Amino acid sequence: MAIDATHDPAQTSWVASAQALGADFPIQNLPFGRIRRAGSAEPWRIGVAIGDQVLDLAAAALAGGWSAEVAALLAPLAAGDLNAVMAQGSAARRVLRSALQAGLKTGSAQQAVLATCLIAQAEVEFSLPCTVHDYTDFYTGIHHATAVGKLFRPDNPLLPNYKWVPIGYHGRASSLVVSGTAIRRPNGQFKLPGTPEGAAPDFGPCRRLDYELELGAYVGRANALGEPVPIGQAEEHLFGVGLFNDWSARDLQAWEYQPLGPFLAKNFGSTVSPWIVTMEALAPFRQPFTRPEGDPQPLPYLDSAANREAGAFDIQLQVRLQTAKMREAGEPAVALMQSNFRDSYWTLAQLLTHHTVNGCNLNPGDLLGSGTQSGPQPGQGGSLLELTGGGKQPITLPNGETRTFLQDGDSVELHAWCEREGTVRIGFGPCAGVILPAP
Amino acid sequence: MAIDATHDPAQTSWVASAQALGADFPIQNLPFGRIRRAGSAEPWRIGVAIGDQVLDLAAAALAGGWSAEVAALLAPLAAGDLNAVMAQGSAARRVLRSALQAGLKTGSAQQAVLATCLIAQAEVEFSLPCTVHDYTDFYTGIHHATAVGKLFRPDNPLLPNYKWVPIGYHGRASSLVVSGTAIRRPNGQFKLPGTPEGAAPDFGPCRRLDYELELGAYVGRANALGEPVPIGQAEEHLFGVGLFNDWSARDLQAWEYQPLGPFLAKNFGSTVSPWIVTMEALAPFRQPFTRPEGDPQPLPYLDSAANREAGAFDIQLQVRLQTAKMREAGEPAVALMQSNFRDSYWTLAQLLTHHTVNGCNLNPGDLLGSGTQSGPQPGQGGSLLELTGGGKQPITLPNGETRTFLQDGDSVELHAWCEREGTVRIGFGPCAGVILPAP
Repeated sequence: MAIDATHDPAQTSWVASAQALGADFPIQNLPFGRIRRAGSAEPWRIGVAIGDQVLDLAAAALAGGWSAEVAALLAPLAAGDLNAVMAQGSAARRVLRSALQAGLKTGSAQQAVLATCLIAQAEVEFSLPCTVHDYTDFYTGIHHATAVGKLFRPDNPLLPNYKWVPIGYHGRASSLVVSGTAIRRPNGQFKLPGTPEGAAPDFGPCRRLDYELELGAYVGRANALGEPVPIGQAEEHLFGVGLFNDWSARDLQAWEYQPLGPFLAKNFGSTVSPWIVTMEALAPFRQPFTRPEGDPQPLPYLDSAANREAGAFDIQLQVRLQTAKMREAGEPAVALMQSNFRDSYWTLAQLLTHHTVNGCNLNPGDLLGSGTQSGPQPGQGGSLLELTGGGKQPITLPNGETRTFLQDGDSVELHAWCEREGTVRIGFGPCAGVILPAP
Repeated sequence: MAIDATHDPAQTSWVASAQALGADFPIQNLPFGRIRRAGSAEPWRIGVAIGDQVLDLAAAALAGGWSAEVAALLAPLAAGDLNAVMAQGSAARRVLRSALQAGLKTGSAQQAVLATCLIAQAEVEFSLPCTVHDYTDFYTGIHHATAVGKLFRPDNPLLPNYKWVPIGYHGRASSLVVSGTAIRRPNGQFKLPGTPEGAAPDFGPCRRLDYELELGAYVGRANALGEPVPIGQAEEHLFGVGLFNDWSARDLQAWEYQPLGPFLAKNFGSTVSPWIVTMEALAPFRQPFTRPEGDPQPLPYLDSAANREAGAFDIQLQVRLQTAKMREAGEPAVALMQSNFRDSYWTLAQLLTHHTVNGCNLNPGDLLGSGTQSGPQPGQGGSLLELTGGGKQPITLPNGETRTFLQDGDSVELHAWCEREGTVRIGFGPCAGVILPAP
């Protein structure tokens, strides 16, 4: 895949922090979020992250100096509506990206006026970056599916459909929250170990509360009901990617999930990161999509030369945990594991095409969760369920605390970034949430 | 449950067709739908069915003569926004019901002006009656769950959680369509009988296309994320009920559904009826909720005296089929089965409370599907899967045609109505869709 000029590693911004070592948001990134000044009653508007600042697009739209095409794109963003731009597809998005980059680059004639449109990220609060009408969660982490399957079916961990069907199910859109929102431990039904099969289940606060490390892809252009999106056109319907924590109540899940799948074990809250990193920002980190030796190739409707050549993404993923005790002691969150999205068994294009092959319609802003991204090694589980062998082998933290599942006061942070020789690092910013006690 | 004056069986309307024998929409019903003149580009607005007419609430709002409170309720309805009134709960809904009934009753001083606000139902088209942000499908039909379970697990048809957990899963809101919308047969992956376990699945048009006879309850007042709705308050969060056809691709479902539940087998389209019958209209048909002898009682969070006394509803349900050949011959649809919602294993109040017990937030207009409502007898299956023993025993139609699953050109109609000695019949109007060939 050709990398365009917007990824020139020599390009810098007049916002100095964009060039800081390890910065998530250089001028090559420019992700979108929905912001206002923290604690204010200001209207929400879309902002673009640059270094440790946000370019407030409501202010930027008012400042003027844009082409008519760019001004028309900025108008809904100034009103907080990212979906309207998502709906317009990749050409419009690239026009906007180029214009914003031209305004933010070192030596830009717009520097003086755009400098007045910056707000420090430390001073803003976020909402969901767009309206998510429908949210789907996939199951593309084959190492996760195998590890979880082993807990239930030691001899046959992967179900027969796994290598053919990009397994997915519908999630709850209403309980999606943005990073920083506290998550209340759910109450629910569960069976304690040793409870006889016919006996009444227990009811109370979840005892096996977990996170899941996922990416979330956001849909751009819509498809109409009854009109599948061929694999060759799938990329045109993708807008960008954020981090996604699919909090999971494992004890509720084990008891409720048959035969129709997870429900209350998931819909008490799911956290997205504030920023959506666009497909253009991720372009240099594309890589070939391959299947392990001996695995079946995807069915023709999920296969294309472009998908094979550059359908996968090299995105590093990490989970960090900070307990209440660590927070009180001023100790930072510790990394529990690291994995990479290139190990996903299906590409984002395949997920989108599979989702629509039956005619299902996707709308701008719809969220496609990747499923838990665990790596191939035992220490690379993307959930505590995996890292602790189903809650049997507690992990020990640097301060001596142990965990099987999450305790009240624990804070979980997901992180993601892309790094490659000859390119500038692209970061996602954190996706975080702290656990509150059950009501 | 006390029946209020709005159910007085002596009450009649100046709209004569409201008193026709077997009418769905007497003055005791007054369901809400979203309408405009068929084929027009008029703005959508909310209408109320009365006899074979619709009272256009945009016109009625303009006509005036309402109290300030009623006028404030009519304003969003005139703009096509039912959700705004749904959000206000039962007291506001009752005020509106009484006002509309007073205007439509025989001898009303408003007759002359409201007569100009009627449109014949035959001349309107419908959209979804409200905005459905999230749609959940439950599985309350124990006879359905048992019959379907028997096909997969003859010795153990009901899973151990069934009598404790109101099983539910999230559906796709984007592909909800209103009655009358054609349904395109989906393409997808399936395994033909006899295909070896490791072999590639087939791909093509669904061969086992089915309907599911369901009711759909619509949420009224919202609950906030993290705030469960106790069973004693659940009714206040219910707005009303419509018919719901959960079209199902059985071959896709069998191959894809493990371990996370149905996905592409369902989200190609789900049909709702145009009218929402309010909880007030259904009040005379409430009845005690009981469990069969020997079955466990619901856990305390799903139990209340009010729910035991009057949580269930006596609603007759029917599926009718018209093949293309019947349509060409001018033959009406034939009834395939009939069942009753009083056989549901869980009440609507229990579904709502269970859905929120973990803190999940429900919004006005959210749809709670009941799951397939099959009766206790073999001929009372609410899907073809049941009526044909998993596709093994074709049913024969009066014209000699046979069916295991739906053919292109088949039209399925769901019907529902309430009848009880000493009350006026309350109908739901049809929920219909015809099958188009796969793309």
